[in-house]
Amino acid sequence: MKPVRLAILGLGTVGGGALKLLQENAAEIKRRTGREIQITHVGTRRPRPDLELEGIKQSADLLDIVRQPDVDVVVEVMGGIHPAYEVIMEAIKHGKQVVTANKALLAEHGNELFKAAEDNAVQIAYEAAVAGGIPIIKVIREGLAANHIEWLAGIINGTGNFILTEMREKGRAFDDVLKEAQELGYAEADPTFDVEGIDAAHKLTILASCAFGIPLQFDKVYTEGISKITAQDVKYAEDLGFRIKHLGIARRAEKGIELRVHPTLIPDEQLIANVNGVKNAVLVQANAVGPTLYYGAGAGAGPTASAVVADVIDIVRDISYTEDGAGTIPQLAFEALTNVPILSREEMTTGYYIRLNAEDQTGVLADVTTILSRAGISIDAIMQQSRLKDLIPIVILTDPIVESKMDDALAQIQALPAIRGEIVRIRLESLDS
Amino acid sequence: MKPVRLAILGLGTVGGGALKLLQENAAEIKRRTGREIQITHVGTRRPRPDLELEGIKQSADLLDIVRQPDVDVVVEVMGGIHPAYEVIMEAIKHGKQVVTANKALLAEHGNELFKAAEDNAVQIAYEAAVAGGIPIIKVIREGLAANHIEWLAGIINGTGNFILTEMREKGRAFDDVLKEAQELGYAEADPTFDVEGIDAAHKLTILASCAFGIPLQFDKVYTEGISKITAQDVKYAEDLGFRIKHLGIARRAEKGIELRVHPTLIPDEQLIANVNGVKNAVLVQANAVGPTLYYGAGAGAGPTASAVVADVIDIVRDISYTEDGAGTIPQLAFEALTNVPILSREEMTTGYYIRLNAEDQTGVLADVTTILSRAGISIDAIMQQSRLKDLIPIVILTDPIVESKMDDALAQIQALPAIRGEIVRIRLESLDS
Repeated sequence: MKPVRLAILGLGTVGGGALKLLQENAAEIKRRTGREIQITHVGTRRPRPDLELEGIKQSADLLDIVRQPDVDVVVEVMGGIHPAYEVIMEAIKHGKQVVTANKALLAEHGNELFKAAEDNAVQIAYEAAVAGGIPIIKVIREGLAANHIEWLAGIINGTGNFILTEMREKGRAFDDVLKEAQELGYAEADPTFDVEGIDAAHKLTILASCAFGIPLQFDKVYTEGISKITAQDVKYAEDLGFRIKHLGIARRAEKGIELRVHPTLIPDEQLIANVNGVKNAVLVQANAVGPTLYYGAGAGAGPTASAVVADVIDIVRDISYTEDGAGTIPQLAFEALTNVPILSREEMTTGYYIRLNAEDQTGVLADVTTILSRAGISIDAIMQQSRLKDLIPIVILTDPIVESKMDDALAQIQALPAIRGEIVRIRLESLDS
Repeated sequence: MKPVRLAILGLGTVGGGALKLLQENAAEIKRRTGREIQITHVGTRRPRPDLELEGIKQSADLLDIVRQPDVDVVVEVMGGIHPAYEVIMEAIKHGKQVVTANKALLAEHGNELFKAAEDNAVQIAYEAAVAGGIPIIKVIREGLAANHIEWLAGIINGTGNFILTEMREKGRAFDDVLKEAQELGYAEADPTFDVEGIDAAHKLTILASCAFGIPLQFDKVYTEGISKITAQDVKYAEDLGFRIKHLGIARRAEKGIELRVHPTLIPDEQLIANVNGVKNAVLVQANAVGPTLYYGAGAGAGPTASAVVADVIDIVRDISYTEDGAGTIPQLAFEALTNVPILSREEMTTGYYIRLNAEDQTGVLADVTTILSRAGISIDAIMQQSRLKDLIPIVILTDPIVESKMDDALAQIQALPAIRGEIVRIRLESLDS
């Protein structure tokens, strides 16, 4: 069979990594696909003298590249919404297969893009958009296809996990670790996407669509970052047998689906609680298989290239044996998507870690527990910490409760005369199957 | 499109589980495949009044079932080599697709079966044969297809892991835990397959073929069980920061491939060291993505059915869109298998935990360390334990060394007059990437 011809758009970390991987592992990849993969075009503004680009056409005119007849597959690894959106749309219209690592683009504009791909009988493959080198999209779309997926919870932002790991292991403060993460190149100069959970929310949007067969709905993800987590809370959580992880959680509840990204206390004996540093992991609870976990590098040239090139190989196998280019697997895992309501934050149900600072006077604990009890909130543990200055920190862990009830109860507790400063609330999940 | 018609051969735990799963999740599975899956035949001797079998033909004549025209896919979940081999061969000759959970059959006769499938343009799908519900075959064949896989190490026998977990957590003896495992139904009345590593060696054989593109070579796996592991060694290992796990390891070395199943000390901070009870996990080291880990239930009706039905769904998708029935992915991950030498035990390289009992006389330690040093074996740690009766246990951890050298050194140490009883040797792997 003739070689499959690729255009790689973007020659940054990921694009360069994909190019190098296709070159280095060419012999082994050909042993797997039975077909040669040939890079015919790269789209880049910057020359990359460190890469082997002989015989590859270079241009900065991306729209022109995707129209070329010697391109079968377009690999979009430049990132950003524009012009990636326009370029991919143009590629699709020209019948090209698309591989992308662009989580923001898919989470925010995926519904239109997948529709266009379907109309033109091509695929958009996006394994690299979520959890880097972990083949989590394949696992959910295919490996667990026999299951009704109940929920998934993922550490899907390496920067955030690095920061929380350092805070726990070394008792360091958030700002201090963030600065180091920026120096190490883990965090961008503007770290908002990572530490405020936007990047994780993009990935969660995609995971939830594949797991539940629902349209991509990034705007409905409840998103809370880790910038307010203190070393004090990390320590108290640990004393109680928990670790704080920044999780993306998608869960089927009775009245709809919860999509949420937030810091979460999880029991330290859970395997995912022991995923440290910049690593990613996704825990999936499904009705037949029970809990399964997938762990690996969530970013970096090699891991992301691994996912990009795996998608290329899938496409090569598909277009070699199927009649049209639409592939054999529905793009978002289901032949038809369904509209299930996405719950608002107030409708979600979670456990809670609550920390409040009380003046040392009799009756405070009684007042607090009475309010919680009247709101129907069961207390799982309560711990009075060592006095800090003239205040006593009290930590309470609760069983799962709908958030609106917790809002009400905390408003009442906040209003108690003995309570000083703002009450800290961090969600808590047992992650039990 | 017309429904895809299944025959399920064997209605034990796995067969019954697959049938129930196809019935319970029918609507969701149809949403994923766009096509109905209909069970037309079950092959069983025993009636199962607990199952919903209305409209399904039942027979104990398996060869007859697989010849029927209203069967597209044969699901073999009866286990054992015979008559499974003959029945699958007959199914293949009649152009049926095959799904099997039979690790022993594939490890020992897979080369002939896959050859027959290729000749008849059908697939044998076998996700359920390794690590139960963890989609590890899919991950290796497809998800990591861009990578050169360097090694993999798996906890791929739940019974063995349950026993080692109990021994560590509760300081119990092997025999005592084995008896409990048998009572709980985790271990068979004849536990040889599980505790002597044969079951793990079957699975490792299959994993290694997919990872490296080599023929199935069960007879070349070096296999050592856990029946000689003592609570004492578990304790000493733990004191040194290690856990003993029964691992299947496949590794590319300079001169060939190592295939080995044996108890192994691994650092307790490794995620896989924290996989406890009957759970399975496979750690894969690959050149682009680095280390990734896959965790879940390795046995049981639900998890195994999850893998069986995922294979059925893959086949349904394939035969709906491709021209012949051979699928788009090579059966053992590579278009052409290569013959790489499999190393003998003596040629393998690993680290070691050595425990010897010495009489309390000066110079023993000097003699032992001199022998190791002359053999070129570096000592990573040495620990003299508390005296037991009149002997002093000495534990030594070594860096990796070729086994033949360790054999020689240990023979010399064993011959020292101050050494009493047999020297204990357990392999040690850092599992570093």
